[in-house]
Amino acid sequence: MTDSNDIQLQIDALVLRIDELESRAALRDLVTDYCLGFDNRDWDRFIAIWHRDAVWEIGPPFGTFKGHEGIREAVIEILYPLWRETHHLASNLLLTFDDPDHARGVCNVDCMGATVDDVVQMISATYRDDFERRDGVWKIAKRHVTIHYFNPIPGVEMSAPAG
Amino acid sequence: MTDSNDIQLQIDALVLRIDELESRAALRDLVTDYCLGFDNRDWDRFIAIWHRDAVWEIGPPFGTFKGHEGIREAVIEILYPLWRETHHLASNLLLTFDDPDHARGVCNVDCMGATVDDVVQMISATYRDDFERRDGVWKIAKRHVTIHYFNPIPGVEMSAPAG
Amino acid sequence: MTDSNDIQLQIDALVLRIDELESRAALRDLVTDYCLGFDNRDWDRFIAIWHRDAVWEIGPPFGTFKGHEGIREAVIEILYPLWRETHHLASNLLLTFDDPDHARGVCNVDCMGATVDDVVQMISATYRDDFERRDGVWKIAKRHVTIHYFNPIPGVEMSAPAG
Repeated sequence: MTDSNDIQLQIDALVLRIDELESRAALRDLVTDYCLGFDNRDWDRFIAIWHRDAVWEIGPPFGTFKGHEGIREAVIEILYPLWRETHHLASNLLLTFDDPDHARGVCNVDCMGATVDDVVQMISATYRDDFERRDGVWKIAKRHVTIHYFNPIPGVEMSAPAG
Repeated sequence: MTDSNDIQLQIDALVLRIDELESRAALRDLVTDYCLGFDNRDWDRFIAIWHRDAVWEIGPPFGTFKGHEGIREAVIEILYPLWRETHHLASNLLLTFDDPDHARGVCNVDCMGATVDDVVQMISATYRDDFERRDGVWKIAKRHVTIHYFNPIPGVEMSAPAG
Repeated sequence: MTDSNDIQLQIDALVLRIDELESRAALRDLVTDYCLGFDNRDWDRFIAIWHRDAVWEIGPPFGTFKGHEGIREAVIEILYPLWRETHHLASNLLLTFDDPDHARGVCNVDCMGATVDDVVQMISATYRDDFERRDGVWKIAKRHVTIHYFNPIPGVEMSAPAG
């Protein structure tokens, strides 16, 4: 019985380690789904990354938005009307775990886009996330944004090749 | 014996979970080897990511290419003659598994490059991949490309620091 | 006893596989901490990624720097005085293991920055790393840099939105 108990303890330790590795993949997917959901205007994908009571601190010049209703307002009423198209690239994702159900993330995001009046813009930002796993599902509880730069690129157009 | 059977079942479940995590790393490497192989003109690295019967749907203005021979034609006869240098950055890789040997991927790719006539271009695209593991090796069965923009950056040069 | 030995062998094999997956996450964090540490001028984060005797081959026009003291000189005395701000994005990280404690990495890095005299620059480089795990901690033993391009973007400013 000692042997079997020892084996079970070893397995339990492996389960914890695998769980964290799987959580890392799930958290990376949340960061990715933000970009894919926003840029493709895929609302179901976008809103699914946020907990119901999530807080999105975009900061100047946009402000802070709370809950799914506030996030919807930010995207649909404020951001999408500004942009004809956006292209977010997330990079440098650093994840740290406070416990198996709470983690923090930092990542850098580069965004190229064109406003509705055809000005091509380059944007760089850092996102700082609080992630929580509730009922077995990881989502964002809070995202804090720091925009490093947000500037036009004069003389550049943004268009797809002719089909 | 019940105990030992139960232990074996737990181990078998862990093996499946570890296998998926390892597959995620292998699939990420395929996406990376596309960029490293293409940009460094490392043909062995580049062609190794594709199954023999792979389909590469690059779309306008390039078309669709089939099998290693078609892929060779696209790269060697069409793309490399256009470019003096390219620099692909893959990001936002989202992987979903249909079963342990079939997965789909979406990623965004930013590419800066200079054409052979020294025009610096900025390109953004989404790649949608069908991955298959055959004989234990993951490769791309189909890659579909959507180019979001492909535009020159007027007045910019692309050159390395003097050695 | 045969059964129990067989179970232990299976567990030992899983431990090795999980260890490599965890090492992959740790090595990715080193590549990320380089970017976050350098850009945020967070010295503790930056220097922690390098072994005491690490070698940093930045190449032209900067040179080679050895040990924590040489790395400090490169960053504090040479690089930071040139830059008002930098924004590194690491991508395309490919990791290969020589043994459980030695690995090699290749990644591509895009850096947008502004020099102290307000010129916006775009840089692309490849980093080739030798990673070693000593006393259970992965750090960089050698980083070799190849800069692909390093050019100004005329007419572009780099500034954050007004607060």
